[in-house]
Amino acid sequence: MKKYLYTPGPTQVPLEVAIEGLYPIMHHRSSGFSKIFDEVCADLKDIFKTKADVLCFSSTGTGVMESVVVNLLAKNEEVLIVRGGKFGNRWVELCETFDANVTVIDIEWGKSINPDQIEKILNKKSNIKHVFLTHCETSTGVLTDIKRISEITRNYNSFIIVDAITTIGAQAFYMDEWKIDVAIAASHKGFMLPPGLACVAISERAKRQIMATNIPRYYFDFRKMLESLKKSTTTYTPAVSLIRSLKKSIEIIKEEGLENTWLRHERLAMATREAVQALGLELFTKENWSNVLTAVKVPETINGIKLIEIMKNKYGVIIAGGQAHLKGKIFRIGHLGFISDFDIIIVISALERALVDLGMNIKIGSGVTRVQEVFTDY
Amino acid sequence: MKKYLYTPGPTQVPLEVAIEGLYPIMHHRSSGFSKIFDEVCADLKDIFKTKADVLCFSSTGTGVMESVVVNLLAKNEEVLIVRGGKFGNRWVELCETFDANVTVIDIEWGKSINPDQIEKILNKKSNIKHVFLTHCETSTGVLTDIKRISEITRNYNSFIIVDAITTIGAQAFYMDEWKIDVAIAASHKGFMLPPGLACVAISERAKRQIMATNIPRYYFDFRKMLESLKKSTTTYTPAVSLIRSLKKSIEIIKEEGLENTWLRHERLAMATREAVQALGLELFTKENWSNVLTAVKVPETINGIKLIEIMKNKYGVIIAGGQAHLKGKIFRIGHLGFISDFDIIIVISALERALVDLGMNIKIGSGVTRVQEVFTDY
Repeated sequence: MKKYLYTPGPTQVPLEVAIEGLYPIMHHRSSGFSKIFDEVCADLKDIFKTKADVLCFSSTGTGVMESVVVNLLAKNEEVLIVRGGKFGNRWVELCETFDANVTVIDIEWGKSINPDQIEKILNKKSNIKHVFLTHCETSTGVLTDIKRISEITRNYNSFIIVDAITTIGAQAFYMDEWKIDVAIAASHKGFMLPPGLACVAISERAKRQIMATNIPRYYFDFRKMLESLKKSTTTYTPAVSLIRSLKKSIEIIKEEGLENTWLRHERLAMATREAVQALGLELFTKENWSNVLTAVKVPETINGIKLIEIMKNKYGVIIAGGQAHLKGKIFRIGHLGFISDFDIIIVISALERALVDLGMNIKIGSGVTRVQEVFTDY
Repeated sequence: MKKYLYTPGPTQVPLEVAIEGLYPIMHHRSSGFSKIFDEVCADLKDIFKTKADVLCFSSTGTGVMESVVVNLLAKNEEVLIVRGGKFGNRWVELCETFDANVTVIDIEWGKSINPDQIEKILNKKSNIKHVFLTHCETSTGVLTDIKRISEITRNYNSFIIVDAITTIGAQAFYMDEWKIDVAIAASHKGFMLPPGLACVAISERAKRQIMATNIPRYYFDFRKMLESLKKSTTTYTPAVSLIRSLKKSIEIIKEEGLENTWLRHERLAMATREAVQALGLELFTKENWSNVLTAVKVPETINGIKLIEIMKNKYGVIIAGGQAHLKGKIFRIGHLGFISDFDIIIVISALERALVDLGMNIKIGSGVTRVQEVFTDY
């Protein structure tokens, strides 16, 4: 069956990006590889909107999340974490694992934080050194207002660390303008690559902090990686094929224009939101939604697990379910990376048919019509 | 220019293995992926010659080396490390990073350890809990007699941890028969894959130890990964494309027969050693050589850096130089993975011509003739 992937990571890989992985393996200590690597590292700065160095690790997103914690924190330092889903919780688990003193602001899943809440805590606890944020909380689709939070926290001198794994390359992100200290990304999201490569951008201020911290680290040691970067390489074997593919996917982003890529995701998200509502479904995330995925409530009359199964098994359309306590309660449509207008038509038409299969009383065609209207208007 | 890769990692990737990376991305929480993953995990046991569970991490070799240290050791535990090159030294650096009390047996680079030396130290220091070994020391090509060392150490109850990164799938390795507690491998060696995937096999005895240790860990946490394995998945996003490719490369190994694969490497190594000696060159590793690479002394009359440059730039044949203090003093020919008899003919004929280019007085054709003789006889 012809298959269509709409998960918020891993995402679809363009053939011309995947094909780069077929090229003969380059030795990682060769001038040929270093040339590609230098170009990729320079382009990554443009995509993170930063002048800061960007490091590439052979790992997935969780690996670079750990890398930030072990390189930036000292034991027993005070950290503040906003937790509104599974990935906010990952920061909590990581910081606790490495003995930070963790203050958590718990947000109801699907809601976004009011930046004032952060200010209130920073006012009370002046010793909070790091604030961990999740730009798009992939488990709910909620977008955090990093810009506003950064404006607030700036006065408190805390480091701002942002998991931008699902947004980099897909949704507006301005590392330097927003004065972010550390931001991370992973290959299998907006970069349209297979999983296995992850990036971390480190501000000059964060670099100074790194040199002073005391958590043992080796594979993810930023100090060594920053030295290696000066020599146009990584400390340990880089994922040479993925870096070659990354060069190609960055070319695709540059050809479209990064800002246009962001705008495309905005349109795709808008069309998806409008369509599911036209079908009588309710958005799970009612405000501050991201442009990379849409979380939708499963109507009480139907079985959410079954909906996803029918989408997959009958129509070949793979969407994501809810995670943790949201399992069966929501579904998530990823429209991230290599996704066109017509991909939204496909996923919505499959959704319409699956809802009919489950006996839901919808007006067939109303979803795809709304998609068409949105794309015609915007 | 047509290029030929002979580095001891990364190694050449067969097209049919690389092509698996072109297949549409599978979601890592799908039953389709789990099926492939289960098959790969079962096959990995056959290749490690073990009944133990094998975990797959999205990282390169150094990542799984770290994973072993942080999962198996407790702080201030006594460890013994045999260091005869760059990768033995990596165990030292890692164990020191994570606060082990390290005893090092330093072996001259290019020489192999006499197992009695280990026994002597274990006799003296009865509290040594872990012995770290390097099956093939890739910086020199020396093979360590793991079997013999294991027989000795068994009486002392220490854990035996083996970096088999360069040997697994290429040279005889019997995890269970040799009573190894932990063994590691990486994708870009005998598995003939791009870098970015690494494996660790964990004996039941080691598993019990893992539950009792106290080093903080998250991305590389074996406890969580063993739980995930029961559910036919990994804890964090697996490198889905590489795992798909790994399935294909294991098929290739199984088709040849693992023992035949080992024998092929033995023949390739023998032909290479014989040929370089027929050209009047001296082996750097005079005994206990591995079958995966051949380290050769650069004759004093020629420039070792230039030799490698000519091989690469004039003939498109990429071999490796020496590392650390051996830079310029040796060169290393990797004959590991997707390498045939005729690949040895190529590398030796390029070597002959490069030596002539550098003004060395060799009998042109004597190297390739010796290769032909060896392959005819064995």
